[in-house]
Formats: sequence, C-alpha cells, structure tokens
Amino acid sequence: MLADVELAKAYRLLNHGPTVLVSSAAGGRQNVMAAAWAMPLDFDPPKVLVVIDKSTYSRELIEVSGEFILNIPCRAQAGQVLSAGSDSGRERNKFSVSGLQPQPAQRVGAPRVADCLAYLECKVVPEPHNQQRYDLFIGEVVAAQADDGVFRDGRWHFSDDVRRSLHYIAGGAFFATGEAFSVV
Amino acid sequence: MLADVELAKAYRLLNHGPTVLVSSAAGGRQNVMAAAWAMPLDFDPPKVLVVIDKSTYSRELIEVSGEFILNIPCRAQAGQVLSAGSDSGRERNKFSVSGLQPQPAQRVGAPRVADCLAYLECKVVPEPHNQQRYDLFIGEVVAAQADDGVFRDGRWHFSDDVRRSLHYIAGGAFFATGEAFSVV
Repeated sequence: MLADVELAKAYRLLNHGPTVLVSSAAGGRQNVMAAAWAMPLDFDPPKVLVVIDKSTYSRELIEVSGEFILNIPCRAQAGQVLSAGSDSGRERNKFSVSGLQPQPAQRVGAPRVADCLAYLECKVVPEPHNQQRYDLFIGEVVAAQADDGVFRDGRWHFSDDVRRSLHYIAGGAFFATGEAFSVV
Repeated sequence: MLADVELAKAYRLLNHGPTVLVSSAAGGRQNVMAAAWAMPLDFDPPKVLVVIDKSTYSRELIEVSGEFILNIPCRAQAGQVLSAGSDSGRERNKFSVSGLQPQPAQRVGAPRVADCLAYLECKVVPEPHNQQRYDLFIGEVVAAQADDGVFRDGRWHFSDDVRRSLHYIAGGAFFATGEAFSVV
C-alpha cells in the first residue's frame, strides 16, 4: 500500500547509489570522506558529480587543489567507510582514524584508498555557482582503474560477497550490490 | 589486479545507483523514460538531480511543464524499464510501447508509473546553465510516497526478490539491490 514518506526522509528513496570514498590532498595534508551522493554526468569527456558539504575538511582541500578521487569501496571495508563518513578530518586525519590506507594515484595529487574496487581520478570543472549554492562539484575523470577481479570488459562481475560495492542508507545500514540479471 | 578502464567506459564504475523512470506531461501529452543518473542533492527542502538528454522527448515536456516524477521501479518491471530506456517517445507514446501504466499523481501534472516502489514528485528548480551545458536538472521534491511493503520508518525493507530496486549497467544488464547489513 502506498504510504506518505516524510519529505525530510525522501532522499532515502534515492540514496542507494554506490557509496564512494572521496579522497583529497593539498599543502601536504590529505583526507578521505564517505559520500553517498555521487553519479556520472557525461560520457565523453567523462564527468562525474559529487556533493561535498561546506562544513567538511575535504571541501577545503578540494577547493585548493582542484582535484579529488572517487574510490569505490567494497563490503569488506564497510566499517571503515562508516568511520570515514562520521568524523571530521579537520581535527584528526581520517586515514588514521578509519584505518584506511593512502596510496599514490596516477594523475592527481590526491591519494587513492588502498584495496578499493575501483578509482576515478578527477579534476574539478570549476562551476562556482553550483559549488556555493548546492555544494555540487563536477569532476572530469582523467584516469580510471578497477580491480579486474570484479570489473572487466566494461562490466562489474561480482562473485565474492565481500568484494561487492556498497549502497548506504542511514544509521550504519547498507545494502550490498545484489544479483546480476539481464533482460535482453 | 588493477587494470586500466577505458575512459569512455569509466561511468560504468559509478552507474549503479537506483534506476529510475522519469515521467512527464505537457499540453495533453505524456511520456516516460528510464534514467540511471539520478541522485539526491539536498535534505531540506529535499532536492534531487537527474540528467535528461537534450535529444529526448521527455526533455521537451519537462521544460514546458517545469515538473517531473522520479518513479522507482522494481525487478518485476525490468523489461519495461529497458523498453522505456530504448525508444524515443517522440514517435510513439512510451507508456503504450513499454506496457507501463500512467496514473494520476498528487502534486504535479506528470503521471505516476503504476506499480513502482516509490514516487518522488518534483518541480524543476530553474538553472538554465546546468540544463543547457550539462543536461542536468534540479528538482525540488514536493510529494513522496512509497509502498509500505518495501519502505517504512524511513528505510527500505526488501524481502521479495521481484520487489527490489534496480541498478542498471549497460546492454540490458542490471543488478538487483542486494543483501542488507549493518556495521553499527
């Protein structure tokens, strides 16, 4: 039966895209935060969208450096993802807090997060109005790599339960990416 | 092992948010299209983002009416979702082509798609630069309803395999939303 959804909770109907870790660096400092609100924007050149709140330390680093990485974590990392989504990196380095490990990237100064399923290295496409008004950042993807155990021939091929992507809802509750099927 | 991902396919790393059906109406005509690129933008007032290509008939209807609905379909509807994502509604009404049924909505003139899991009725927040340059639309959610068999107390509670949300990849291949778990 259809029931009204409180408008303040309506985002949860659409919240379960793949959860990402946003990593960034500037002036010798680095940080990582969890984000549920990221998606593709364009194919060629490939662009992505991600919402980065003004209150976050990552926002400062991204605005200075003009770079970020969308790291796609897996179920085995869910506890660390929640930790990276809970504290602020302003007081404490969230790599230390969460136990997530930074690694050098290919094309940007931001660090990758070790053991993720995939990496989208991005340079910010400056859109000051979107950034200020909506906390919305556009990134052009300048390098992309994935674990070929789970992504090959342009498709995800999940087999192991702990190496599946995550879909966050709220309060520490996630879904794992589920059964694959085709309708063609 | 990490492998390079062709940049033209990099979007597939992030493509598997919940697939939506975008429905619209203007001047006595209506249409429905599938979209993989939709996500929340803000909590209060609730806003969503959706990418609507310039070539689509839905784009014309949304620009005239300033309204759309994000309908969240389920696995039982996957074949119809693919059909609604494949043709253009300019030549043929995609409700007829796909077998999806239009229903009256609460707050907007666009029709709901019957038997979906949830509905986010939206009014366009005009941002001409985003619409023209990025095909990106912002909607303020003015009404939200969900099937209380699968969404209640602000959370998804999937139990039946065919009443799960969809995550589209490419070429008719989907994932169903998978196992729920908590790390708190």
